[in-house]
Amino acid sequence: MNNTFRHTVPHLILDDFDGRQRVIIEQVVPELDGGKYPIRCMEGELLTVEADIFTDGADTISAAICCRPAGGGEWLRYAMQPRENDRWEGFLPVGKPGRYEYTLEAWIDHFITWKKGLSKKVEAGQDVLLDLRIGAVFVEKAAGRSPEPDALQLKTYAVKMLAPDQSAAVTAASDEALELLMLRYPDKAHATRYEKALALVVETPKAGFSSWYELFPRSWGREPGRHGTFRDCMRLLPLVAGMGFDVIYLPPIHPIGITKRKGKNNALVAGPDEPGSCWAIGSEEGGHKSVHPELGTLDDFRAFVAEAERHGISVALDIAFQCSPDHPYVKEHPQWFRWRPDGTVQFAENPPKRYEDILPLDFESPDWQNLWLELRSIFLFWIESGVTVFRVDNPHTKAFPFWEWAIATIQEEHPETVFLAEAFTRPRLMGRLARAGFTQSYSYFTWRNTKWELQEYLRELSSAPLKYYMRPNFWPNTPDILHEELQTGGRPKFIIRLVLAGTLSSNYGMYGPAYELCEHLPVAPGKEEYLDSEKYEIKQWDLDRPGNIRAEITLLNRIRKENQALQSTSNITFLRIDASAGHEHDWLIGYVKQSSDGQNIILTVVNLDQSNTHGGWLHFPLERFGIDAGSRYRMEDLLGGASYEWHGEWNYIELNPAVMPAHVFRVNFMS
Amino acid sequence: MNNTFRHTVPHLILDDFDGRQRVIIEQVVPELDGGKYPIRCMEGELLTVEADIFTDGADTISAAICCRPAGGGEWLRYAMQPRENDRWEGFLPVGKPGRYEYTLEAWIDHFITWKKGLSKKVEAGQDVLLDLRIGAVFVEKAAGRSPEPDALQLKTYAVKMLAPDQSAAVTAASDEALELLMLRYPDKAHATRYEKALALVVETPKAGFSSWYELFPRSWGREPGRHGTFRDCMRLLPLVAGMGFDVIYLPPIHPIGITKRKGKNNALVAGPDEPGSCWAIGSEEGGHKSVHPELGTLDDFRAFVAEAERHGISVALDIAFQCSPDHPYVKEHPQWFRWRPDGTVQFAENPPKRYEDILPLDFESPDWQNLWLELRSIFLFWIESGVTVFRVDNPHTKAFPFWEWAIATIQEEHPETVFLAEAFTRPRLMGRLARAGFTQSYSYFTWRNTKWELQEYLRELSSAPLKYYMRPNFWPNTPDILHEELQTGGRPKFIIRLVLAGTLSSNYGMYGPAYELCEHLPVAPGKEEYLDSEKYEIKQWDLDRPGNIRAEITLLNRIRKENQALQSTSNITFLRIDASAGHEHDWLIGYVKQSSDGQNIILTVVNLDQSNTHGGWLHFPLERFGIDAGSRYRMEDLLGGASYEWHGEWNYIELNPAVMPAHVFRVNFMS
Repeated sequence: MNNTFRHTVPHLILDDFDGRQRVIIEQVVPELDGGKYPIRCMEGELLTVEADIFTDGADTISAAICCRPAGGGEWLRYAMQPRENDRWEGFLPVGKPGRYEYTLEAWIDHFITWKKGLSKKVEAGQDVLLDLRIGAVFVEKAAGRSPEPDALQLKTYAVKMLAPDQSAAVTAASDEALELLMLRYPDKAHATRYEKALALVVETPKAGFSSWYELFPRSWGREPGRHGTFRDCMRLLPLVAGMGFDVIYLPPIHPIGITKRKGKNNALVAGPDEPGSCWAIGSEEGGHKSVHPELGTLDDFRAFVAEAERHGISVALDIAFQCSPDHPYVKEHPQWFRWRPDGTVQFAENPPKRYEDILPLDFESPDWQNLWLELRSIFLFWIESGVTVFRVDNPHTKAFPFWEWAIATIQEEHPETVFLAEAFTRPRLMGRLARAGFTQSYSYFTWRNTKWELQEYLRELSSAPLKYYMRPNFWPNTPDILHEELQTGGRPKFIIRLVLAGTLSSNYGMYGPAYELCEHLPVAPGKEEYLDSEKYEIKQWDLDRPGNIRAEITLLNRIRKENQALQSTSNITFLRIDASAGHEHDWLIGYVKQSSDGQNIILTVVNLDQSNTHGGWLHFPLERFGIDAGSRYRMEDLLGGASYEWHGEWNYIELNPAVMPAHVFRVNFMS
Repeated sequence: MNNTFRHTVPHLILDDFDGRQRVIIEQVVPELDGGKYPIRCMEGELLTVEADIFTDGADTISAAICCRPAGGGEWLRYAMQPRENDRWEGFLPVGKPGRYEYTLEAWIDHFITWKKGLSKKVEAGQDVLLDLRIGAVFVEKAAGRSPEPDALQLKTYAVKMLAPDQSAAVTAASDEALELLMLRYPDKAHATRYEKALALVVETPKAGFSSWYELFPRSWGREPGRHGTFRDCMRLLPLVAGMGFDVIYLPPIHPIGITKRKGKNNALVAGPDEPGSCWAIGSEEGGHKSVHPELGTLDDFRAFVAEAERHGISVALDIAFQCSPDHPYVKEHPQWFRWRPDGTVQFAENPPKRYEDILPLDFESPDWQNLWLELRSIFLFWIESGVTVFRVDNPHTKAFPFWEWAIATIQEEHPETVFLAEAFTRPRLMGRLARAGFTQSYSYFTWRNTKWELQEYLRELSSAPLKYYMRPNFWPNTPDILHEELQTGGRPKFIIRLVLAGTLSSNYGMYGPAYELCEHLPVAPGKEEYLDSEKYEIKQWDLDRPGNIRAEITLLNRIRKENQALQSTSNITFLRIDASAGHEHDWLIGYVKQSSDGQNIILTVVNLDQSNTHGGWLHFPLERFGIDAGSRYRMEDLLGGASYEWHGEWNYIELNPAVMPAHVFRVNFMS
């Protein structure tokens, strides 16, 4: 018999196949790529799990979500409830960071089926003597599956159900307490277990909520023009911590190549004293596991990391898998590069553009295994120096299978590590990097500027399937990207983009001090590169320059820290704001975030127009957030400082960008 | 190294894992439930296969669909093309009926990548000497992979690409003929194969296109009131064939139980001469493998099947897995039933309703394996008697895993068999039965009556994923269902529902002669049961009764046979029909079907209102059907007989239901 199964129906090939498992479980959500990839959660989340669950005939079903630590341990079960159209739903409370697996289980509950039939028959005035005898057998059997004192109680019910007075017997059978007892000892002999155990990764808190600040250490020398060191940078830590950031991200800290070094503003030839781009990694002084001597020693770096930690800040390193022509790998591992017929190594190019200071690694090398091991060892090296956060440069130009393997194997030993993918590329590649294991992803936020663009993008990010695997990190600027809006929008636009980044996404960051100083000059009209970019030269920053927005950044970061609602990204709901009746406002964007316990509700409204005051009617659908529609509530503007009493669902708001282009309201209920 | 993979990244556990396979293939469509179920096609179909295909970096990709007979044989390859956003598409020409498997393959084409770079560099005026040397190596290597004379030709190109005159060398490198040659011998050393081989079942033609006629043989006795026999029924075959049907479907032909037999109009007690319901299967005279003696012998039945075959008609048997209390199984296999504490077998019930003449089989029996084998053997028994088409009664009240196993194992030996699921139940269950292997499914058509209901339902059926596994069969009536519309709509409504069933769905059927005689009386107001239902008594039918619609049925079946466009269901496109400008008509419904070769185009318009004439402007988006927008064309009404010359996309149509409530136009092009 079993052989016949094996032959023809592949998925019935199970050693413990039992044809009496009549319940079907399918179309499980979340499930990524047929279970190939884990879904990601944060501790404390209540994960909604859905599935189609049904059986032949009219029997009543019970179903549960089962969850346990990956690879073993006891299954914990959470009851599911039927919704519409055979769709079931349950909630899985997500535990401590780590890897888990979950699956579903469902079974026919013959007792409940029987009880429903009994009540209909009684209602129709039918004799139910025989039915009661049948039901008593279910109860007796449950007694056999249960410990004392429940067993005794069940046996007592079974006796009562056989009472000569049929109405008394029916009363006993219909007792709510009996049903509760029976639900505790179901007959799961023929229960169906969903065929896959799905992976669930609960991530370290920093994966879900982080505020990044990028800076170039070399610009922080104690004297003007002098190359800054890690020791010099220590004085910045109180400042950065004071602004409320918890990740400080450094561009590559390794020795910089000499050959084909780029000069100021990306000039093809560098002058003798120019520092070069720190992304042209490697020189005679070492490669990816070395520190650029002008920054200090490895010990200096470790001291910097330790000092940052004391300020509650993680140091993020920039890992860029590419080499300057002077990188030691070129001589030590020539097989990891593509050689040209003239005996030179192929440099990076995007024809007709050439990047001669950068040699890409060849992921099609016959020696790919050693290449993979070496690249992974770079992460491990820095992890040993105390680094747990990595910003990975252009991961979409390295083979995807490498990331999948490298991140999974590193996180097995170091689950606290965070990998941010710096990929500004096509959607499918971004998605795949996230599924390959990157904890966070740079995003299209920089280029989502209108109300409609922002809403559409956030809806995509906060919906299935993206919300299960991609954690965006919103950056209003980077050393590579000064968006046109910032070039022309002035200080109010910097505040607008700051508030959007920090309230739309729980992970956000900025390249400073360019951002807080509102640096806005591009290298040329129509370009997104900064003029005199810090990538190619040592800068001197006056942090107290008039017009800076340090106070606003500090305030926003405090609001983020104090309000749990802002520590998640997928909990967003956009609100309607009308310019006039029935006509939606183009410039005012509004959205609510609510913490998973429902208590913390933050309503943000931003005027996207930095030049004009706008007002409109905002619709706050109270009941959707568990608020009684008739209640009065106080809107406390955490950003502007004012406080307003609202009632009803429609309220007028107005924002003058010259004063403050946004409200970040906390909703407070009045007794 | 490999051990590390195995440990952490489950889906990289492949013996032939090669990290250099840089191309990613995912989100393949069609793929049902992660590849668990096959998709279904008809011979001659061109199956569109899509996937996300991309790689790291900027290299150019080639991709192909691979298909071969299930379990082995040579892979045939069909090139795919990139569409938007890394989505690729290809077309798989579906072969002869049988089981196949398909998968995808993609690889980086270094030559094409190189060639694109070359052309950009040349355009930018760069020196390309070194590039030409690199390219020549690709061409030489391809020569090594190719047979003569292509090898020689490639070698010649390689030489030309090294010509001292760079412009001549570039010309050689850019030769279209070289590219075509190179595409024939790609370097697939690191090609990615999609991780699953997906199953594809090409079904027997009758699975996709069939016209069913249901009749009760016992009503066709030669003398009024006498029980009809198979021999008597032979005289009906020319008539049914003449009407254009190719399946004749008989309700259960087995011995009928005596105990609790139902009388006329489902009366609880049958009179001594009443024949009973033929779904109460089994008596002392036998069970599911026996013939009801009053119908004749097994040999008579076989003769009937053979005679039907001579008329091009398949005989479909009704397989109902349930037993009358007199069925031999009750004594022979008591373990297949549920016994009650009073020593009786549990009958079917839907509390408070009782069906005491029907005993359900217990799919939770400890002896389930033998039950499964016995039930399957019933199909095999009738297959041996020449039956290949089965209508299965209420399959959704039997365990789903049974169907999956039974149909798969039967079809392995008998791929020509067709199983029609008679399940009028919830959508998930209907879908699962189709995926479990049922060839065709009864549908909700009977209860989809308004324009919007019909459009929405057909859109669902003709879209992914349903179109890949569910083949609906549209029945305007059955012995159980006389829809209210037919009770009150008169002859025009019978024609309306006939035309809808036969043009919306390539598989359709009717319960005759009730349908062609426009029988319309229900057993009681608000009920869908027929008055004096043939299910409980022997009827006498006057096939020539005035007002019958036999001519219309005959014509419609001929139109279906002569027009390939109507032999598929998922090829439907609904058209807009306006009552006035910009206001869509409520009563006129219009749709186009086009054959896969594009040549046969049928445009159907139905007036859903049987009482009033309606006219409107119909929009026929010519270019979507490959028709030049400026062309003139003749609309030949195959149903009404008239012919109209149309031009442009908007044309006026009008239908008087008293004359003919529908047009079935064939589009003829004029030179």
